[in-house]
Amino acid sequence: MTTRLFVSDNSAAVHPHVWEAMRAADAPDMPYDGDALSQGLDARFSALFGRECAVVWAGTGTAANALALACLTPPFGGIVCHYDAHVEADEGGAPEFFTHGAKLMLAQGEGAKVTPETIAAVIDPIRNDVHRVQPVTLALTQATEQGRVYTPDELAALTAFARERGLRVHLDGARFANAVAHLGCSAAEAAAVQGIDSLSFGFIKNGGMGAEALLLFDTALADQCRRRHKRAGQLQSKGRYMAAQLHAMLDDDIWLENGRAANRAARIVAEAAPERLLDQVDANEVFMRLSSDEREALRAQGFAFYDWSDTSARFVTAWNTSAEDAGALASALSAL
Amino acid sequence: MTTRLFVSDNSAAVHPHVWEAMRAADAPDMPYDGDALSQGLDARFSALFGRECAVVWAGTGTAANALALACLTPPFGGIVCHYDAHVEADEGGAPEFFTHGAKLMLAQGEGAKVTPETIAAVIDPIRNDVHRVQPVTLALTQATEQGRVYTPDELAALTAFARERGLRVHLDGARFANAVAHLGCSAAEAAAVQGIDSLSFGFIKNGGMGAEALLLFDTALADQCRRRHKRAGQLQSKGRYMAAQLHAMLDDDIWLENGRAANRAARIVAEAAPERLLDQVDANEVFMRLSSDEREALRAQGFAFYDWSDTSARFVTAWNTSAEDAGALASALSAL
Amino acid sequence: MTTRLFVSDNSAAVHPHVWEAMRAADAPDMPYDGDALSQGLDARFSALFGRECAVVWAGTGTAANALALACLTPPFGGIVCHYDAHVEADEGGAPEFFTHGAKLMLAQGEGAKVTPETIAAVIDPIRNDVHRVQPVTLALTQATEQGRVYTPDELAALTAFARERGLRVHLDGARFANAVAHLGCSAAEAAAVQGIDSLSFGFIKNGGMGAEALLLFDTALADQCRRRHKRAGQLQSKGRYMAAQLHAMLDDDIWLENGRAANRAARIVAEAAPERLLDQVDANEVFMRLSSDEREALRAQGFAFYDWSDTSARFVTAWNTSAEDAGALASALSAL
Amino acid sequence: MTTRLFVSDNSAAVHPHVWEAMRAADAPDMPYDGDALSQGLDARFSALFGRECAVVWAGTGTAANALALACLTPPFGGIVCHYDAHVEADEGGAPEFFTHGAKLMLAQGEGAKVTPETIAAVIDPIRNDVHRVQPVTLALTQATEQGRVYTPDELAALTAFARERGLRVHLDGARFANAVAHLGCSAAEAAAVQGIDSLSFGFIKNGGMGAEALLLFDTALADQCRRRHKRAGQLQSKGRYMAAQLHAMLDDDIWLENGRAANRAARIVAEAAPERLLDQVDANEVFMRLSSDEREALRAQGFAFYDWSDTSARFVTAWNTSAEDAGALASALSAL
Repeated sequence: MTTRLFVSDNSAAVHPHVWEAMRAADAPDMPYDGDALSQGLDARFSALFGRECAVVWAGTGTAANALALACLTPPFGGIVCHYDAHVEADEGGAPEFFTHGAKLMLAQGEGAKVTPETIAAVIDPIRNDVHRVQPVTLALTQATEQGRVYTPDELAALTAFARERGLRVHLDGARFANAVAHLGCSAAEAAAVQGIDSLSFGFIKNGGMGAEALLLFDTALADQCRRRHKRAGQLQSKGRYMAAQLHAMLDDDIWLENGRAANRAARIVAEAAPERLLDQVDANEVFMRLSSDEREALRAQGFAFYDWSDTSARFVTAWNTSAEDAGALASALSAL
Repeated sequence: MTTRLFVSDNSAAVHPHVWEAMRAADAPDMPYDGDALSQGLDARFSALFGRECAVVWAGTGTAANALALACLTPPFGGIVCHYDAHVEADEGGAPEFFTHGAKLMLAQGEGAKVTPETIAAVIDPIRNDVHRVQPVTLALTQATEQGRVYTPDELAALTAFARERGLRVHLDGARFANAVAHLGCSAAEAAAVQGIDSLSFGFIKNGGMGAEALLLFDTALADQCRRRHKRAGQLQSKGRYMAAQLHAMLDDDIWLENGRAANRAARIVAEAAPERLLDQVDANEVFMRLSSDEREALRAQGFAFYDWSDTSARFVTAWNTSAEDAGALASALSAL
Repeated sequence: MTTRLFVSDNSAAVHPHVWEAMRAADAPDMPYDGDALSQGLDARFSALFGRECAVVWAGTGTAANALALACLTPPFGGIVCHYDAHVEADEGGAPEFFTHGAKLMLAQGEGAKVTPETIAAVIDPIRNDVHRVQPVTLALTQATEQGRVYTPDELAALTAFARERGLRVHLDGARFANAVAHLGCSAAEAAAVQGIDSLSFGFIKNGGMGAEALLLFDTALADQCRRRHKRAGQLQSKGRYMAAQLHAMLDDDIWLENGRAANRAARIVAEAAPERLLDQVDANEVFMRLSSDEREALRAQGFAFYDWSDTSARFVTAWNTSAEDAGALASALSAL
Repeated sequence: MTTRLFVSDNSAAVHPHVWEAMRAADAPDMPYDGDALSQGLDARFSALFGRECAVVWAGTGTAANALALACLTPPFGGIVCHYDAHVEADEGGAPEFFTHGAKLMLAQGEGAKVTPETIAAVIDPIRNDVHRVQPVTLALTQATEQGRVYTPDELAALTAFARERGLRVHLDGARFANAVAHLGCSAAEAAAVQGIDSLSFGFIKNGGMGAEALLLFDTALADQCRRRHKRAGQLQSKGRYMAAQLHAMLDDDIWLENGRAANRAARIVAEAAPERLLDQVDANEVFMRLSSDEREALRAQGFAFYDWSDTSARFVTAWNTSAEDAGALASALSAL
């Protein structure tokens, strides 16, 4: 029996063009980030977003997020995010480590999306005195941990609200490509790029191997970020293999094509059993009500996926999920 | 004119067998370190060293060292190392970051090698009261930052001394392969494996791409290490590409063959001008007295290398330094 | 017009017997905690609680709590406490600072009292993997931040539950004297002393000046605690004036008499307008529904107190709140 | 036999005027630093130094120093100080704790005094790249840990040098009163007040009980300092007793009179055996060559003091060292 993996987009292979670019990086160059490829990243991403940024590669989205939060938030400050945000729920305390103990302040919102109102409910009761940790940074995720996507208008409203309240803004874009693919707008619009200070642009789940891009639109943060990056053991000595992955993903909009492909596969799965969906499917994650018996039945047919709760499952598609695999899952779901 | 690179072993290419193993890892598997390759590392390294160990891969030697030190040393403790130790001089404060502020205590010694006597000179004057930070961990480097290698007897004496004084021991083996190649003994002997708590076994400078192995011989540290590793943003989501590198390097003793090759090339360079050597050449680094004019002359011939001081230079060879390149440098040095 | 202060028990004077003891400490003795008074604290508190403990004085309850939490919780661990717990809401992030970034996990419960059920609701959904911060410590407050007191049975159930789930237990007793006075039981019973690892025993709000006692019932924590205490700048050089305060408060059960006096005064206030109470009054804090106009009217009569919300106020009595002051407030409340 | 204490100025009593001021603080006032006395400190110290400063009281010099260093130095920065500096050698790692892991960089100099030359020897070899921790702050001590005093010219040269190299400057003045008494100049001159960013002004060793003053001449640091102060558990709830001590010490220049008295007593001791002095005696610490037998003989006569090394002793005088005690020690030394 064939195993068909819907466990995680982290299980997917590396894209052929990324492999080619990495092999080409075998040519000797300066160590760390002194190589030509690493040195070219600022220009490359600044062009894509139409706003100047400083770029640091990192081996994980966790590191990219935590570095950004540490550059934005003093140890005695607070970071507002959704209850389900990756930085709160899935990073083993990395934000607290990198920031030296900033406090995460949890806001609510449907689909793991916060709103100005849910943020206000968290921060407005906080007296501004030294006894209370003060909110400093707003951390958003695009697409969210429940597979939902903020519209450009929603993001613009959030960043305007943040500016009004004096909050810095970091955007966790582990699945940013899927968000852009869903929205059909530019990367700049999908990130509300004029209103954010930093973006973790994820490539690993989307056909890369081990390189994410941290973009600092507040370029004044670049120097401290590079020092924190080294100090966190993130400055790989053969950095050209990291930079090569990022350049390759930007070539011919591979990042966007890959995002579209994953979203398409997710839609095939979602449409097979719309009545089971916990939430609308914007990106490449499908959350479905499925009883224990139903999940058992699917697994018996070779489908691998995570339980989401006692009564639901999560299916994740990837850039290379085949039409056959998605179709097989769709059929199996319909047949339940 | 051909550029011949002696800047750093970090400039060297990835070994073909490592490439093959990484490509094979494209087959889907569980994310993070749940894949079969990662799960097989404990057994593989335990066999090599003849002592049970828990293995964690890391993207940099800096991260591997700092993780180990954090597992061994409380925030209020001290770490004894040489003045020139990488953990003190070249990691941007990573040990202080990962340990939450442990103090590095600097000992002397020729060739960047500490001795029981130079360690005692540092720690014996420290009163055991709360006003003084107490030494807890001894950090050694094999081969050292000046290209020297501890003999098994020297290491055994150091670890015995450490045990006597209640110090834990971490061994930084960024160039451990070069040390083993030099000593002609087993990996276990070259690490004094019965006397140490942890070893950063370096592969990146030696033909790998971006994976070092942290070996915890005190396996009771494994759980906290895995949590610190995640929290430091080191737990890559496609960890199978990391583990593949390590397995590949151990196949057919490639790590050792590569270390030998680099050492051989260094010897060719060193023997060309023995009167210029700052220190004996045990491994793959050659430090030579060279005036500013002489360095200029070498660079004019296409040789790239770092200045070590106003009156000296450092040449580093790698696993793939060609006989031709080493010979050309040797000739140029002889001709000065 | 006389100002009658119900703002905080921190506004109250120092008890005469404490003054006497401090003056007596003018006699020269060894610095830091080498003096006879400091050295006698372990025995004194061990006798009071009928369980051996190691005692460290601290200048604030915040420091005492945070030190205890740091001794119990690794940087990558979690601390479960009530949403309104002082450690979460009023210590400016001190627990995060002292623990190097442990995560506070917030549980609910009426009267700021958690229960095994509300704790389970927080910790049971946490998968035990490295992506999630794991709960390690339970922090309770006796009396709570809403002026409520756990019964010995409630505390025993909580500590048993904690033991069952592998959680360490710290008890914040900033107003522990008020709790014991309310319960009419022994200090040991009011602290469930056999089930806890540490207790911050508060004296400052209760007639002391600037010394709280941190009691470590897990005496194996004493050495690290003393080092963290020094490292946090808490080891005062004339420690005998700190120890003197603690000894004086224990003499003739002054701590308990003072707690009773404050509770009595609170009861006078509470009984004047029981229909206004937000919660039952166990200790020395009275929370009352009072409109903005009503609060204005009270202030016009010379009463000082904090607003608790837009529609309520907090009145705190102290060991030396005079019957006259309490009576005056009671009359004013009745007359509203 | 009378014990005559020369162990530490921390053993000395509290000055009567300080006691009076503390008793007067029994009058109720706002908690924490909201009281009138605390609120008056900025103006009081600004007037004394002729430069605007923000003042925070702290329970120990260790806390005051560490808070200042944390406000001046990022976690990834370095702090240059003398090998014997209190912040390096006697604070249990507090600077590393408060700064979140900044690195102390040790300079030499006779009498525990650094010079532009000895500082340059430490910082000039540090390449400015991310691999090396960069020096950010210079920490000086006035008077030094060996009882020596910087002249205003020396301090001016040091602060000018610091400015030139982009270093911030903190002055540890645990025995600042003794330095001013020795120099016979103003407090402003003795601190080179125009060239420093912060000063820990010590009162505890000089007749206070438990309050030091941290003066921030860079008043832009005040907000973060107050937040770090709370977060470090230093914000005592009855702060008026802290502020009262500082105000009392400034009344009628008691601080300066006390410093003079201690210096006078030290001179009496020093002049009894000038041939034994390890260093010149500027302040209130006398270091003398004394054999083990000689120290034994002195102790047999009731003198208490610390051994400084195997062949020397340290005698510390205080504001209330009686002429009789100093004379008795002088006679005993002469008679050896």
